[in-house]
Amino acid sequence: MEEILYGVAYYYEYLPYDRLKEDIEMMKKAGINVVRIAESTWSTYEKSPGEFDFSSVDLVIDEMEKAGIKVIIGTPTYAVPSWLVDMDAEVMVTRKGSGRAIYGQRQIMDITNKTYLYHSERVIRKLIERTANRANVIGFQLDNETKAYGTSGKNVQIAFVEHLKRLFDGDLDKLNAAYGLDYWSNRIDSWENFPDVNGTINGSLGAAFEEYQRLLVDEFLQWQADIVNEYRREDQFLTQNFDFEWRGYSYGVQPEVNHYKASQAITIAGCDIYHPTQDLLTGKEIAFCGDSTRSLKKDNYLVLETEAQGFPQWTPFRTQLLLQAYSHLASGANMVMYWHWHSIHNACESYWRGLLSHDFKENATYREAVTIGSEWKDLSPKLVNLKKHNKVALVVSNEALTALKWFPVDLNAAFQSSISYNDIVLAYYTQLYNLNIECDIVTPDMVGWTDYEILVVPALYSASDETYRELAAFVEKGGNLLSTFKTAVANEHLKISYEGTPKGLQETFGMQYNQFAIPSKTRLTSEFFSFEKDAEVQGFMEMLEPDEATVLASYDHAPGDRDVAITANEYGKGKAVYVGCMMDDQSFSQVIRKIFEELFAYQMSEYAFPIIVKKGTNQFGNELTYLFNYSEKELAVASPTEGMSLREKRNIAKNESLIIKPWDLVILENEQQ
Amino acid sequence: MEEILYGVAYYYEYLPYDRLKEDIEMMKKAGINVVRIAESTWSTYEKSPGEFDFSSVDLVIDEMEKAGIKVIIGTPTYAVPSWLVDMDAEVMVTRKGSGRAIYGQRQIMDITNKTYLYHSERVIRKLIERTANRANVIGFQLDNETKAYGTSGKNVQIAFVEHLKRLFDGDLDKLNAAYGLDYWSNRIDSWENFPDVNGTINGSLGAAFEEYQRLLVDEFLQWQADIVNEYRREDQFLTQNFDFEWRGYSYGVQPEVNHYKASQAITIAGCDIYHPTQDLLTGKEIAFCGDSTRSLKKDNYLVLETEAQGFPQWTPFRTQLLLQAYSHLASGANMVMYWHWHSIHNACESYWRGLLSHDFKENATYREAVTIGSEWKDLSPKLVNLKKHNKVALVVSNEALTALKWFPVDLNAAFQSSISYNDIVLAYYTQLYNLNIECDIVTPDMVGWTDYEILVVPALYSASDETYRELAAFVEKGGNLLSTFKTAVANEHLKISYEGTPKGLQETFGMQYNQFAIPSKTRLTSEFFSFEKDAEVQGFMEMLEPDEATVLASYDHAPGDRDVAITANEYGKGKAVYVGCMMDDQSFSQVIRKIFEELFAYQMSEYAFPIIVKKGTNQFGNELTYLFNYSEKELAVASPTEGMSLREKRNIAKNESLIIKPWDLVILENEQQ
Amino acid sequence: MEEILYGVAYYYEYLPYDRLKEDIEMMKKAGINVVRIAESTWSTYEKSPGEFDFSSVDLVIDEMEKAGIKVIIGTPTYAVPSWLVDMDAEVMVTRKGSGRAIYGQRQIMDITNKTYLYHSERVIRKLIERTANRANVIGFQLDNETKAYGTSGKNVQIAFVEHLKRLFDGDLDKLNAAYGLDYWSNRIDSWENFPDVNGTINGSLGAAFEEYQRLLVDEFLQWQADIVNEYRREDQFLTQNFDFEWRGYSYGVQPEVNHYKASQAITIAGCDIYHPTQDLLTGKEIAFCGDSTRSLKKDNYLVLETEAQGFPQWTPFRTQLLLQAYSHLASGANMVMYWHWHSIHNACESYWRGLLSHDFKENATYREAVTIGSEWKDLSPKLVNLKKHNKVALVVSNEALTALKWFPVDLNAAFQSSISYNDIVLAYYTQLYNLNIECDIVTPDMVGWTDYEILVVPALYSASDETYRELAAFVEKGGNLLSTFKTAVANEHLKISYEGTPKGLQETFGMQYNQFAIPSKTRLTSEFFSFEKDAEVQGFMEMLEPDEATVLASYDHAPGDRDVAITANEYGKGKAVYVGCMMDDQSFSQVIRKIFEELFAYQMSEYAFPIIVKKGTNQFGNELTYLFNYSEKELAVASPTEGMSLREKRNIAKNESLIIKPWDLVILENEQQ
Repeated sequence: MEEILYGVAYYYEYLPYDRLKEDIEMMKKAGINVVRIAESTWSTYEKSPGEFDFSSVDLVIDEMEKAGIKVIIGTPTYAVPSWLVDMDAEVMVTRKGSGRAIYGQRQIMDITNKTYLYHSERVIRKLIERTANRANVIGFQLDNETKAYGTSGKNVQIAFVEHLKRLFDGDLDKLNAAYGLDYWSNRIDSWENFPDVNGTINGSLGAAFEEYQRLLVDEFLQWQADIVNEYRREDQFLTQNFDFEWRGYSYGVQPEVNHYKASQAITIAGCDIYHPTQDLLTGKEIAFCGDSTRSLKKDNYLVLETEAQGFPQWTPFRTQLLLQAYSHLASGANMVMYWHWHSIHNACESYWRGLLSHDFKENATYREAVTIGSEWKDLSPKLVNLKKHNKVALVVSNEALTALKWFPVDLNAAFQSSISYNDIVLAYYTQLYNLNIECDIVTPDMVGWTDYEILVVPALYSASDETYRELAAFVEKGGNLLSTFKTAVANEHLKISYEGTPKGLQETFGMQYNQFAIPSKTRLTSEFFSFEKDAEVQGFMEMLEPDEATVLASYDHAPGDRDVAITANEYGKGKAVYVGCMMDDQSFSQVIRKIFEELFAYQMSEYAFPIIVKKGTNQFGNELTYLFNYSEKELAVASPTEGMSLREKRNIAKNESLIIKPWDLVILENEQQ
Repeated sequence: MEEILYGVAYYYEYLPYDRLKEDIEMMKKAGINVVRIAESTWSTYEKSPGEFDFSSVDLVIDEMEKAGIKVIIGTPTYAVPSWLVDMDAEVMVTRKGSGRAIYGQRQIMDITNKTYLYHSERVIRKLIERTANRANVIGFQLDNETKAYGTSGKNVQIAFVEHLKRLFDGDLDKLNAAYGLDYWSNRIDSWENFPDVNGTINGSLGAAFEEYQRLLVDEFLQWQADIVNEYRREDQFLTQNFDFEWRGYSYGVQPEVNHYKASQAITIAGCDIYHPTQDLLTGKEIAFCGDSTRSLKKDNYLVLETEAQGFPQWTPFRTQLLLQAYSHLASGANMVMYWHWHSIHNACESYWRGLLSHDFKENATYREAVTIGSEWKDLSPKLVNLKKHNKVALVVSNEALTALKWFPVDLNAAFQSSISYNDIVLAYYTQLYNLNIECDIVTPDMVGWTDYEILVVPALYSASDETYRELAAFVEKGGNLLSTFKTAVANEHLKISYEGTPKGLQETFGMQYNQFAIPSKTRLTSEFFSFEKDAEVQGFMEMLEPDEATVLASYDHAPGDRDVAITANEYGKGKAVYVGCMMDDQSFSQVIRKIFEELFAYQMSEYAFPIIVKKGTNQFGNELTYLFNYSEKELAVASPTEGMSLREKRNIAKNESLIIKPWDLVILENEQQ
Repeated sequence: MEEILYGVAYYYEYLPYDRLKEDIEMMKKAGINVVRIAESTWSTYEKSPGEFDFSSVDLVIDEMEKAGIKVIIGTPTYAVPSWLVDMDAEVMVTRKGSGRAIYGQRQIMDITNKTYLYHSERVIRKLIERTANRANVIGFQLDNETKAYGTSGKNVQIAFVEHLKRLFDGDLDKLNAAYGLDYWSNRIDSWENFPDVNGTINGSLGAAFEEYQRLLVDEFLQWQADIVNEYRREDQFLTQNFDFEWRGYSYGVQPEVNHYKASQAITIAGCDIYHPTQDLLTGKEIAFCGDSTRSLKKDNYLVLETEAQGFPQWTPFRTQLLLQAYSHLASGANMVMYWHWHSIHNACESYWRGLLSHDFKENATYREAVTIGSEWKDLSPKLVNLKKHNKVALVVSNEALTALKWFPVDLNAAFQSSISYNDIVLAYYTQLYNLNIECDIVTPDMVGWTDYEILVVPALYSASDETYRELAAFVEKGGNLLSTFKTAVANEHLKISYEGTPKGLQETFGMQYNQFAIPSKTRLTSEFFSFEKDAEVQGFMEMLEPDEATVLASYDHAPGDRDVAITANEYGKGKAVYVGCMMDDQSFSQVIRKIFEELFAYQMSEYAFPIIVKKGTNQFGNELTYLFNYSEKELAVASPTEGMSLREKRNIAKNESLIIKPWDLVILENEQQ
């Protein structure tokens, strides 16, 4: 990337009146240098089947070109025209529990439906053909936050059965054995009469179907990529805005897409990041989603959507928009693009507000964007293409996520549970983030996923034997492994290990266990961690049985004969630590700090949240150090390095006291000697 | 009305044995002078299609006539016989999300279904023809709590599309533009292939359909009225028991019926009022529903249903039944009718108990009714036809209610919200009620809706430009306007203003705003209001930008560049106050009191809840003052007027100390000099 | 029974590899002397229609026989092969609200479907024919936790209408009158056009249908029994594992089965008992379910399923498994069988863990089973066939349970309620249990159900007049009756009494009432009970009107003219106490203790929870006294009797101080002189 891209999604088609020129003028003032267009409005471009009208696209590209603003074109396939559904009712997705969807919402089509694919291909070709030759079109986004949307109609299930046939070499006995289908008389002894998978209570079969649905996403994106690639110039990129689990904001691993596999279709990784703000702004979601997306291609990435004003809860306090924008860059983003330019006046996302409110006037948020744009114009060469060299990786897995949905950690006999996979992943990520331990976020699918000094592996419930072997080898060769309860329980078919747990890693961890419980009035006792106050065990606990391992902490009140909670083991040249339970936040922080500092000899930052430190090397080979203040109080810190304070444009000595205003930051560039 | 009507709904057909004469004897003892009959039992009158048997109706009218008890006849169309559904399955309503209803419940038919209408008309004609000529039949109730019940089957949607064609002159471009249907590819470019409105995510289209459903109610009632009018005598009235939003009791504006429009079909307004009692009795629901219903025809009204014993939670404490009965009269009711006479022994409303328990014996509640009946026999001429002359009106709107359902005030990205339109309306009504500011409740549909000194307009989110102009004119001519956040945001199609907010009223309020947020640790600061304690901002806040307006209060912790919360403006000869947020109850009370007293120069009552004061002029031209004690403690008050204490039958001097017992009242008649 | 059976459910078919011999070896070590097999795996025995393979059954029986382990055979009909559903889609149950079920889950077939019954019969015959002649097969279990699963498809409803025809002699007027169908126009005037019962709002009709569904269970089990009886040897028993309402553990009366009626098909009663453990272990569920099941045949019973490790919440603390096992015996169980031997590696109950964890290794829970097995081998003759002679019976009723589902105790107008029938039943049972008042649990269906000194009858909302007469006669003849609010309200058709309440028992209780309410700030006042602290009335209260009865307690804050809460009456030779409300636990305990001790002259135990005492006579005619410590603290008690401490093998003098360890017990055998 030549410069930091600062952008907005722009919907000329949604405007209540034509104000393209006024918009562009305001964009210029705010330093906006790129817009994303066209991904939402198929029915406007093709009002009736085969009658295309791209005049609004042409017009916007023309005017942006004149203004020197770049354009990203989105293929308009995530929301279909009503005439398409009128043509073939099966365009709408059929889902477990709710049957065939009704037209209206977006992202509820069957992405395998032939009618949908036929008409999608046609409109994509028309649009890309028309725009690929435009000078200021710098890249393409395929569809939008693509998923399989739970598609599970007859056609999809037939294809899934074919998929299983391939997986099990056409051998039903293998399938019955792998999935344990004798249970509750669920055996399948005829490929032809394969029961409706939507009714299954077999977690292995159910998870296999969800994995198949993720596969459909990979295929769909590759299919779109192949079409666009016929037209795309070498210098134009291909991207996709991956999003994350949604809890009203971006929350951990996306269950319905394997980002890594899906990203094979594109040339640069991109994502959507939405996060709490105001008094709840921590930067954690920006960092997690950024670390995830950067790790997909181990390179800089695009933030294709993030909030400007967003929902009322998200209206940023003064300087928060600026803090957020730099936070993206500090994680390795090369673009920050708001969703969206102007707030929409109708439909259902009207209060997911853009940079401009409904009145199109300058407002406090827009004025802050002007500041950001102005700073970036100046600092872009220093900031762009920041590279990371993290020694730590957090290992996550779609398969484990799905597995723990079918087999929840703390399931009870009323079939309720409260702890999800992402809760555990984010609990660990939060500790790393708060302690300023920067990390990549990898999956066992990735080449080189163990090429780190330290791997943090929370709740990797299921994986292939190969994966477990790679983890063992990682430690043996000198790696430091920190893992948790519910790791290495089952194989890739979700069959729970009958050879003990942690499966394949008992020697590595120097311990095993076969009992676990829900803590009740249980506390951790430990000489090693010397907890400052009562360390409360929460949610779930395994009773570890150390063989070679050292006991780091024990339970004071637990069932079973043994009561070990945390162990450490030397294995080969490395160390393997296993944390068998969840605990209160403060104790958890002590545990992570102590393990990293003392056992893994990791060079800890002297700062902790709300001071967040992020580092990298810029394109001049200089180390950049970002120091963020994620609080409403002014804070003073001793500079961790000498260097140029880029925003203040003054030299700072190492250990010089830096004042960081509320919700603000300092950037230091340390020139290579 | 010649006298206060004291009545019960009476279901002879539900009795486990014939006790008509015993019932009438007990009614006479309790002063019951009217019964409502016949609205629930179609299947009893027409056991098979076309075979009518109204012998029970005849019998009840005969016996009531002998006893001097009046009768109101209800048309029996709200619950259909099973044979009707057997004849045409489409009689049952088809609703969004749940498909075609199953027979069993009442009020789940399609009120536009031809079979239903044909058989309804026949049974109505038979019943009214037979009863209209009876001397003691004083009026008719059309159907019962009529709504469209969410009807949205194919037939209804086809009719809705025709309705839209008329609304937009057959021009789809107009419709697409008005509703913003380009969004998410939702354009409609063919009237023939109009998509299923039940799937829409477009708030404008969705709200238009709900308004259409309300229109069906108006048409249905007018259709029934036209039938009954063929038989009705001049002296017989036509009414309908309007009900309100239901949260286990009557709660604010009815979303599914525009009471004002629907009341065009009838000659006297009527309603159902159910409310908390026991320690939770405040009289507020009685007052709100009464003020609403009285304002429909600006005249006295009928309480067609209210609780006697009701659910266990509602069993009244000693004297509460009496307090409630008088509270209705003090709001302008000319009838108080209990639902119902005897508790039902089967089915599903058995514990919605009547005046009599299941054993038909005298009980404490019945004995209190005897007291009420006895007092009213005596006082009826003084109490009946009480007229109000309120200077204040609360402005409410079905359209705004529906709009804020589609665009909730505090919606977040998890698509949750907690503040509804009625919450805001009732928050304002509660303040007025507690401060003894009596008001009418009007809608912009009504002729003369701005003919008041003060208008309170909470959250009038959407309306026509005409309505906004009328509000501006009201202030210009000298009116006092108190309005709130989320007022004048959108036009009648729910398109949010792109010319700023408050739409069309920026000059009137002397301010505008374009940012808003959810408060977090935010407090109001104000010299004007001098809050007694921290004034906590709650739920939602707009950041106002005053032009000409005076700042009355500001936020201490808010996003944006500006932080103004409450403004007042002089505009023309009037004043316009805008409250940009919600706040804690105590501060809210201070705000309302101060605005009314100091800015609007309103003559405040010296009493406040739990002393409730209601006034009016009786048919002798004398002013009646009701003083209610809504508490379990005996209270002493200085009499606000001289006059005759009607229940005690003694003269009271102004400022004389009046003792009001727990849950009791005093009525003063001040003879015109 | 010749010995205490100690068993496990064993699923050879679910094993991930063949380890039958290792399993048997481990069973032998743990003293396991019986296994239940075959009830879950129809699709394994009949992979395609008509092709049977029982080799795994044969093998397991063979090997068990060699090892001297007994076998119980379950008929494999609770979970159907997918080919059966493929053959006839109507095998799947059609249920209210959710339509036809999808294949996958167990226990969701229509138990009246012809295809299901045809193929069930064939597989049952094949299995039983093959196993009935085996020496070590000691009995058969019919199906598994059988219910009607809400079956209400067309066929079932047609049969139900035939059932109603018989019930009402084909007279629809009788039915309309009995059920009060005139209400809301719900009359039925044609048997042919009987409306879909799934839509009904008529509680009488709805409850009649639920009773019919329970009848289908009786018929289904009798049908299976008849088949098995063609093959069964005299010495082989027939059982069924009845289960209870499920709230994540066994909770009170099973709504969907009348255990007593269903148990007519079998020769020995059996049940499933699951309960909270760890810090929440009280033994109450073991006692309740045990007392219920023992009372079915007034004889010893089988615990066919109870938890070993179960869900993580259930992992037992040290000695809890032992405490639980003896608790079953002390209630009269002759078998304790764990569900199940080994934890399952796939599907959906993997974390409902067995005695063995997934690794099949010895674990703490297994090791405790070894202790139990060893003790029982020694003590079996002393412990087996323990007989009870309780003077107290708790009267429960499926009909009352269903009635209070349709007419909830504290229903409000938002149609919410929080108190269920089982809540009330268990509140009373808990008091008895905690005070060591042992009881039988009977229903009015049972012969001799009033043959006790004391009957406790909570919330018997509906019953036949005959039942109410039997209760009156019981008191008249000298019995002591303790009954509660919501007893004797309605007849067997759920028609509420129009002749006053308690229906038919007003003279017996010497009081009546016709008003009730939800308490709000209400307290009990009483000289008789002299409450230690404020006695808070909770949930519901009736205002009793005593005629002859003595007032035991009153309300301090209640609607109505009267405020009596608890009454006692002498009637004939007996006493009848009526408790009109719920209250806080401590006051409740005082009330029960005082009523039993002073009014009913019951010989109270000197111990109370957490010391639980259970008694009975063993087969040597000696009295056994079990003393359980249900707490984590060591407790000392004075021995209530002299005798041999069986586990310690030493003589104890009366009043000698016994130390009982945490979660432990002492058993005393007092030899008959």
